[in-house]
Amino acid sequence: MESEKALELVKKQLTDHRYQHTLGVMETAISLAKLYDADEKKAELAAIFHDYAKFRPKEEMKEIILSQGFPRDLLDYNAELWHAPVGSYLVEKEAGVTDPEILAAIRFHTSGRPGMTLLEKIIYLADYIEPGRHFPGVDEVRELARKNLDLALIKSIQNTIIFLLKKNQTVYPDTFYTYNDLLKNRRID
Amino acid sequence: MESEKALELVKKQLTDHRYQHTLGVMETAISLAKLYDADEKKAELAAIFHDYAKFRPKEEMKEIILSQGFPRDLLDYNAELWHAPVGSYLVEKEAGVTDPEILAAIRFHTSGRPGMTLLEKIIYLADYIEPGRHFPGVDEVRELARKNLDLALIKSIQNTIIFLLKKNQTVYPDTFYTYNDLLKNRRID
Repeated sequence: MESEKALELVKKQLTDHRYQHTLGVMETAISLAKLYDADEKKAELAAIFHDYAKFRPKEEMKEIILSQGFPRDLLDYNAELWHAPVGSYLVEKEAGVTDPEILAAIRFHTSGRPGMTLLEKIIYLADYIEPGRHFPGVDEVRELARKNLDLALIKSIQNTIIFLLKKNQTVYPDTFYTYNDLLKNRRID
Repeated sequence: MESEKALELVKKQLTDHRYQHTLGVMETAISLAKLYDADEKKAELAAIFHDYAKFRPKEEMKEIILSQGFPRDLLDYNAELWHAPVGSYLVEKEAGVTDPEILAAIRFHTSGRPGMTLLEKIIYLADYIEPGRHFPGVDEVRELARKNLDLALIKSIQNTIIFLLKKNQTVYPDTFYTYNDLLKNRRID
């Protein structure tokens, strides 16, 4: 699919603000793909579609999680996690994207997962550091992302978990499994 | 077993410093048991024995974890976790303590586990807040422990996870699961 067509499909699904965010993720994902020698076209499409399901009603998302065999325990955790797997399903069903690498990058862009692919890491990070993001620690991760993708990912997940803990929120198991997995496969001390 | 006998057995296993810590845990555990209507005698014995295996050689601890059916994945995480399950085994084998509640409180005093019993919570917390402990945040947990055991536990686990994340260390999954479990069973916001 051409990016113009993809953007057109996505624009209808998002608020203006979220569409601007998506453009930022797209640019960042393309840069990271160039830097780390990933497939730029796939990075572009995964970025464009990553938040496709963001504004679907919760009831619809629940129904898709249950009927499409996504882990049921997602429903016990923050609803912010749901749009990622639901998006991977709807992007295939409604937009006709079938590339499994792109769909996986959409599916795991919020929770992460142990054994993330290069494309999954790029989309996860691009979502975290795109130019429209402003929160404590984001500049440090931006800088790391130019040097070492895994270190940047570890830092972003550490920040995310600490943020959740400080707000007395639960942490989805895949998120801390992703953290442990990245740390074990890389010495960073 | 009388506490004098238990202390005598434990003293041989520990450094002076760690024995002083154990006395602090014992006093704190008895206070918490009184406050929350738990079995004071069991709290006392579990506290006395909680660090029984602390100074066993790593190789011996590994061997016990593998041969006694403790989760193998413990070996993939910080060795600081090992003395707790190994202690529960050795306290039964060498000191003849057979009470399953006491042994479980020893076993889970470092990692926690989902569905912790009252006694397990008391030992976990007493270990964290005994008078000899001095680190950022301990006073807040001490204060919480007098008011609400679960809130104190949640806070202590949040502190522990954040401490590990900031040191780029892995976090044993049971610790996260304990945190999520406590949070789900209690609204604290």
